[in-house]
Amino acid sequence: MIYKIKFGGTGKPKKVSGTSSSKLGGKKMIIVLKPNTKKEEIEHVIEEVKNKGFKPVPFEGDERTVIHALGAVRDDSPDSFRSIRCVEDVVRILKPYKLASKEHHSQKTIVRVGDVAIGNNDFVVIAGPDSVETEKQIIESAKIMKKNGIKIMRGSAFKPRTSPYDFQGFGIEGLKLLKKARDKTGILVETEVMDVRDVPIAAQYADILRVGARNMQNFDLLKELGKVDCPVILKRGMSATIKEFIMAAEYIMASGNKNVILCERGIRTFETAYRNTLDLEAVVVLREETHLPIIVDPSHATGNREWVIPLCKAAAAAGADGILVEVHPDPEKALCDGAQSLYPEQLTRLLKELKPICAAVGKKL
Amino acid sequence: MIYKIKFGGTGKPKKVSGTSSSKLGGKKMIIVLKPNTKKEEIEHVIEEVKNKGFKPVPFEGDERTVIHALGAVRDDSPDSFRSIRCVEDVVRILKPYKLASKEHHSQKTIVRVGDVAIGNNDFVVIAGPDSVETEKQIIESAKIMKKNGIKIMRGSAFKPRTSPYDFQGFGIEGLKLLKKARDKTGILVETEVMDVRDVPIAAQYADILRVGARNMQNFDLLKELGKVDCPVILKRGMSATIKEFIMAAEYIMASGNKNVILCERGIRTFETAYRNTLDLEAVVVLREETHLPIIVDPSHATGNREWVIPLCKAAAAAGADGILVEVHPDPEKALCDGAQSLYPEQLTRLLKELKPICAAVGKKL
Amino acid sequence: MIYKIKFGGTGKPKKVSGTSSSKLGGKKMIIVLKPNTKKEEIEHVIEEVKNKGFKPVPFEGDERTVIHALGAVRDDSPDSFRSIRCVEDVVRILKPYKLASKEHHSQKTIVRVGDVAIGNNDFVVIAGPDSVETEKQIIESAKIMKKNGIKIMRGSAFKPRTSPYDFQGFGIEGLKLLKKARDKTGILVETEVMDVRDVPIAAQYADILRVGARNMQNFDLLKELGKVDCPVILKRGMSATIKEFIMAAEYIMASGNKNVILCERGIRTFETAYRNTLDLEAVVVLREETHLPIIVDPSHATGNREWVIPLCKAAAAAGADGILVEVHPDPEKALCDGAQSLYPEQLTRLLKELKPICAAVGKKL
Amino acid sequence: MIYKIKFGGTGKPKKVSGTSSSKLGGKKMIIVLKPNTKKEEIEHVIEEVKNKGFKPVPFEGDERTVIHALGAVRDDSPDSFRSIRCVEDVVRILKPYKLASKEHHSQKTIVRVGDVAIGNNDFVVIAGPDSVETEKQIIESAKIMKKNGIKIMRGSAFKPRTSPYDFQGFGIEGLKLLKKARDKTGILVETEVMDVRDVPIAAQYADILRVGARNMQNFDLLKELGKVDCPVILKRGMSATIKEFIMAAEYIMASGNKNVILCERGIRTFETAYRNTLDLEAVVVLREETHLPIIVDPSHATGNREWVIPLCKAAAAAGADGILVEVHPDPEKALCDGAQSLYPEQLTRLLKELKPICAAVGKKL
Repeated sequence: MIYKIKFGGTGKPKKVSGTSSSKLGGKKMIIVLKPNTKKEEIEHVIEEVKNKGFKPVPFEGDERTVIHALGAVRDDSPDSFRSIRCVEDVVRILKPYKLASKEHHSQKTIVRVGDVAIGNNDFVVIAGPDSVETEKQIIESAKIMKKNGIKIMRGSAFKPRTSPYDFQGFGIEGLKLLKKARDKTGILVETEVMDVRDVPIAAQYADILRVGARNMQNFDLLKELGKVDCPVILKRGMSATIKEFIMAAEYIMASGNKNVILCERGIRTFETAYRNTLDLEAVVVLREETHLPIIVDPSHATGNREWVIPLCKAAAAAGADGILVEVHPDPEKALCDGAQSLYPEQLTRLLKELKPICAAVGKKL
Repeated sequence: MIYKIKFGGTGKPKKVSGTSSSKLGGKKMIIVLKPNTKKEEIEHVIEEVKNKGFKPVPFEGDERTVIHALGAVRDDSPDSFRSIRCVEDVVRILKPYKLASKEHHSQKTIVRVGDVAIGNNDFVVIAGPDSVETEKQIIESAKIMKKNGIKIMRGSAFKPRTSPYDFQGFGIEGLKLLKKARDKTGILVETEVMDVRDVPIAAQYADILRVGARNMQNFDLLKELGKVDCPVILKRGMSATIKEFIMAAEYIMASGNKNVILCERGIRTFETAYRNTLDLEAVVVLREETHLPIIVDPSHATGNREWVIPLCKAAAAAGADGILVEVHPDPEKALCDGAQSLYPEQLTRLLKELKPICAAVGKKL
Repeated sequence: MIYKIKFGGTGKPKKVSGTSSSKLGGKKMIIVLKPNTKKEEIEHVIEEVKNKGFKPVPFEGDERTVIHALGAVRDDSPDSFRSIRCVEDVVRILKPYKLASKEHHSQKTIVRVGDVAIGNNDFVVIAGPDSVETEKQIIESAKIMKKNGIKIMRGSAFKPRTSPYDFQGFGIEGLKLLKKARDKTGILVETEVMDVRDVPIAAQYADILRVGARNMQNFDLLKELGKVDCPVILKRGMSATIKEFIMAAEYIMASGNKNVILCERGIRTFETAYRNTLDLEAVVVLREETHLPIIVDPSHATGNREWVIPLCKAAAAAGADGILVEVHPDPEKALCDGAQSLYPEQLTRLLKELKPICAAVGKKL
Repeated sequence: MIYKIKFGGTGKPKKVSGTSSSKLGGKKMIIVLKPNTKKEEIEHVIEEVKNKGFKPVPFEGDERTVIHALGAVRDDSPDSFRSIRCVEDVVRILKPYKLASKEHHSQKTIVRVGDVAIGNNDFVVIAGPDSVETEKQIIESAKIMKKNGIKIMRGSAFKPRTSPYDFQGFGIEGLKLLKKARDKTGILVETEVMDVRDVPIAAQYADILRVGARNMQNFDLLKELGKVDCPVILKRGMSATIKEFIMAAEYIMASGNKNVILCERGIRTFETAYRNTLDLEAVVVLREETHLPIIVDPSHATGNREWVIPLCKAAAAAGADGILVEVHPDPEKALCDGAQSLYPEQLTRLLKELKPICAAVGKKL
């Protein structure tokens, strides 16, 4: 037997316009008041709960009073109550995301690019050099990828660099070279976009656009990417929580573009033995929380090509939908991040070693 | 007007033995079930809530059911419900600490050592070398401290070192030298204890015992320290939360020793420009959560003597009850951590500069 | 006596065009090779060192060879050697920043806005509401600030929000209201800018522009801010190292705008008792590394108004040049972050309590 | 051609007793002096370098002087130079560990317990309940493990708990129950030890002893474990770096016990969606740094049984030598950590799913 909650001195439920109290179990906040809050302060909070469109259900206690606020909670609703002096804490029950949430859309999203599907039973390998450097380099790269059966090549024309004195990428010239490699070899191309003003032209030249870790909460960029008809790879920010990561995807989706692919690429921790800490637990949890495809980039996480191969295998075993991995025709000559780029022969070995792992988890490589 | 909660189909509150439902507002857990949990699973959870001695109050919702479990929640109670398959999350309202909590003991604890009081309006400076090295060094140190008006000298005989090949301290010999310095100069002495077996002898030689950051959750050591009649400085673990820190103090207190002084000494973050990140926000929050005195050790946090002085001042301004700071008669000759030890003349300057800051926050130096 | 280093079998230094070996002690990288690296591989590295414009000085060892590369090291130079297979690590001696570095410009930068100077002996308080909400609210805010002697008011028209469903600020309308408050009261105004396209108009309406923590490495935004004639407050990213923080300032400066004010606002750590961990050690270290003014924002770090006042005092004691603090005429009605906004009377108290602290560290409030 | 370094004004190498300068390339520290350090200060540092048994090789530079100190560097040697006022930084080239290091012992260590080998081509699954609760529970657990082919069962008699009010384990009684299960079923048993005083008795009852994350730097415990003839599983501390982790193993080894198994169990990061962040990159890097076997515990990292299975597979794919996983005959009844314990049928499924992954990386399950 399930108790039905009732309110008021008469033992009869109070009606609140438009809401059925018994149907609001999960749609609520719990407002915890400080100990010894005075009666009139409690009433003030109850008034505020009503003013903000919620139904208040107070529980008096020995030590403190707790008020449930039933109704449609927005992400900033809890904060609006925390600002009241006698409020100690506000706990929210429901998760804040909608479009990206598995609860609201239980079927896995499959992002289609050319004849590639990301998010179904295929394990997708996106590989290529960190940056577009020269026509020769990028076309040679495309050929190496094609030879290995890779259908999507990565290559950055715009480069986010910690120092203003470092190589910043070739910009639109780079996009054009990427397009040339695409036209010549038939490979699909993926590239990063950093500036809102570059979104339209990048969407014209590339098959997939990428948001780098540093821009995961560049909300204007996310909104702009919501307006183009081009799949987006969204990299997790270096210190972004799972919730913030999904909310960033929610920005793109709410602006109109549902083709978002999440990419775990390592987070910032206290550890200094590697550049970032690859978080494969995130892959497992994201699969539970969201219907969006999830890929993993071990190249940037490690900064070291020797560690990339085992971590690609671990990503596949953890249930990722694919990987994003750096391969350079001649890593020592790379203008950027050569230390983490695989040699072409290492790509071949990686693919060979990935095959049985993918098979073991029901994915096709 | 405050609604009283009622239960059951008749509009009458169900009696639950020994608890008055209207008095349990704050003493509860909130158990959130997964969406689409079946009726019999919900009833199973309700049974479990009763079995574990709580009063269940379920709220049915559109999307999910939420069950309140009213009663005395233990720190591991939420976990015992998380283990049920249909449970998504368990939220606890009350804080887990008792003896150390300001809610249960609103008056500030004052720890008395000799004629020194820690936790009242005095700002206490505990200063001295990192380690006890030689008789000459420790007696010279004691004299420098006395000359500067310092009443408690630090000095470690047991040293926790990352490497087994580094200087491990002089152990009991060191304790004896510390005692010699104490006898000769009348200064009180403070020292670290690491091994449960050394607690009785250390308590015999020193006036205050210290638990290092690495041992903050060495629970057997904490219990042993609860049995001696000697104040304890408990350092925050390098990645210990405020809650864990207070719970560690709770271990000592629950074992019988109420004279615990908390010491913030820097936490481990992603930042590599300094050894640890001194967390003065912790001082502010600890003052709100607990009645125990709080001191700050900027020497270990920074690892750099140049940064110690401004951070001592910041600690005083944030409301700390004192500082623990390293001073060495000849830092270049220190066997350990010389880089963070102040020169004697810097101690004199520090005290002079601290005075007006302490005065500004109502403390006496 | 100082040894002079010499190279080659004859005992005579080898000449390398354009560099005097004896003058390059600090300008170098140290390339550590893996154990058992073969002779021809070592020679290959030496060749590469020369190709990249450095002078190689190899040291053969029992276990491994170490090669010094003398010359002007760029931020990405070490990486370009890490990409070579036999290289284990590359250590850089010099720091990567130039314009922002105290080494290259030892005199403190003073940023002037109207008749306010930031970075000299004045302690500057920038205060105001989180967001521009209504004409009434912002003008009332300006009056409260003026009454308290505040010369610069904060107020955001563009709001970076984790959720796309939360209040996003009033944009250009907000800028206009800010201008109105400025015109009516004579107060200077400070506001955030997020989108490169909004920089020119924001610079027109506001006296100081702010880069939020999430945009600290939005490099296109930084470059754009380098082109306007308006001081910039650069907030530290939530997981940005000191080095990255200074490098972000370097972007703005290298693009032409030298009036950059650094703002510590809390970093992301494991601690969940507060929103972020205010890092006052950063203030101390930044003062040593850079000549730029440094201010502190405890409102965003804590998310809790009760903790703001002691942390403002700690910031002053640590040596900050000022604070950025949220104050709202009616915090409970704030559209955003009300819980961290001071009540007007708290601002008055804060200023009174700050005065003696500032005096103690030689600052004028 | 490799240059040989020479010292002194005459172009002839200075002899330093007992060291051949040309053989010390890798055995050194690099001491970086502050800019504008005076000649006599430089000479003072050079003297100190000699006094501490190193051979000094100074490099004068435009901006600063760098001094190499050649010789056998101890872990605390750099600190001893950092304490000198004119020293800016000390960089160490060689790694600090010896016995645990792959450089000094390139062959993989195989730890043998009964007929089980850990560290060879077998993938070892250690499974069982979090705690020893009752005779019935532990014997039933042992039978479930045996039925699934598990050869080593975990089960804690001593429990490290954040709160003193939570279940603390049954201590020696628990050890006896564990022994009973061992005698009855023939399964090997693994258990945690926390107190130095319990090491001898625990070693008598159990086949493998475990050091928990909170005790990773309880150096007295590590030393005590070095004295018993029983393999030790050493769990990584929640915020321990790879270096500190290996150094903790070094403590046990230097005290006489070479049978150490490293266990990655999740680290503490900013993420709150899971209890800890499992760091599989550590597995990859540890395999490169040390010859010791490495296992992974996803139960404690996640705190959630649903996430354990994919992460076990990822651990195997990353190259771990085994896993440590919680399984309980009836998780809902577990006294501790039930939410992360697998149901017996989940263990069977896990083993089935692990088999092809292990095969893919050349391991036998």
